[in-house]
Amino acid sequence: MDYYSGYITKLIEELSGLPGIGPKTAGRLAFHILDMPKEQVESLANSMIDAKKNVRYCKCCYTLTDQDICPICSSKERDHKTIMVVETTKDMAAYEKIGEYKGVYHILHGAINPMAGIGQNDIKLKELFERLKDDVNEVIIATNSSVEGEATAMYITKVIKPLGIKVTRIASGVPVGGDLEYVDNVTLLRALQGRVTV
Amino acid sequence: MDYYSGYITKLIEELSGLPGIGPKTAGRLAFHILDMPKEQVESLANSMIDAKKNVRYCKCCYTLTDQDICPICSSKERDHKTIMVVETTKDMAAYEKIGEYKGVYHILHGAINPMAGIGQNDIKLKELFERLKDDVNEVIIATNSSVEGEATAMYITKVIKPLGIKVTRIASGVPVGGDLEYVDNVTLLRALQGRVTV
Repeated sequence: MDYYSGYITKLIEELSGLPGIGPKTAGRLAFHILDMPKEQVESLANSMIDAKKNVRYCKCCYTLTDQDICPICSSKERDHKTIMVVETTKDMAAYEKIGEYKGVYHILHGAINPMAGIGQNDIKLKELFERLKDDVNEVIIATNSSVEGEATAMYITKVIKPLGIKVTRIASGVPVGGDLEYVDNVTLLRALQGRVTV
Repeated sequence: MDYYSGYITKLIEELSGLPGIGPKTAGRLAFHILDMPKEQVESLANSMIDAKKNVRYCKCCYTLTDQDICPICSSKERDHKTIMVVETTKDMAAYEKIGEYKGVYHILHGAINPMAGIGQNDIKLKELFERLKDDVNEVIIATNSSVEGEATAMYITKVIKPLGIKVTRIASGVPVGGDLEYVDNVTLLRALQGRVTV
């Protein structure tokens, strides 16, 4: 890599640190950046610095936002008595895209994963339970249906149920438009167990 | 995308503009950047700005460098009478990695491609011919063996040969370690045409 100017080597190294970007891709990106107009490079660089500087957790739901309280938590049109618990801000965005859910969210920023050393205190669970001191009707658990997501869902259920708050879990089953032939066994079993009368 | 803070949306948009990075990857990168320590984000951003600010073309061979004349062109240990013509700085780096070539380079920054509107004046050809006014023994054409690379090689040959300078082209053939079964027809034909007596 010392065939290049130190600035290029440094840029390639920095880019290689990003997830899913190996040295080859980093090299391609670096040369592309060097080819971009100066203003565009500055705009890209500043968007990183600005995002990092201004984006923080919503004090209520812990989503990533540039305000103290995010637009959803401060909206009067949302049902603040229904809280959907998700793992990441992206999961929240996935539900927001549908535009059907009118409640609010709580972002855990991860899931319980003892193998990776992530316990209940490493994600925003304490903060969720704190919110339940207000008037809450229902907690919808929308963690992933992975082992970690299920473990987290079970833990949340165990803590919240005794409080007399309704706890629900989003349905697992065959994806709409999915071909049964290609659906994995666990999902097929879940779909059978969760069958509904029509 | 307006489910996120404007800063996140802006960052995702900027990242999506990079080659090979679609909106999904851009989202993943953006959230990774937000998760990185502030210093690391600044270091990444500054490496882009610094590279763009300091890296320019070598006045002699047109490689990307942070000096007026790149280390290879200013080295007394290189043979300045042998010039290898390559398409990109990366191609130069590929040959430098071997450490066997002792001549200098000339970087065209592209290849003639009439379909894409790239003519002989859009790449550093004039600058190559200018260099031939000095004492040059051999020009090694190492453009890619693509249609554009071959067209460029032919054009260079046509211009330089009448000047009485030796012009050579790097060999095309079956890659070392390559399995004949999986080599394309054109390469097989080239390998046959370029066969050498042993």
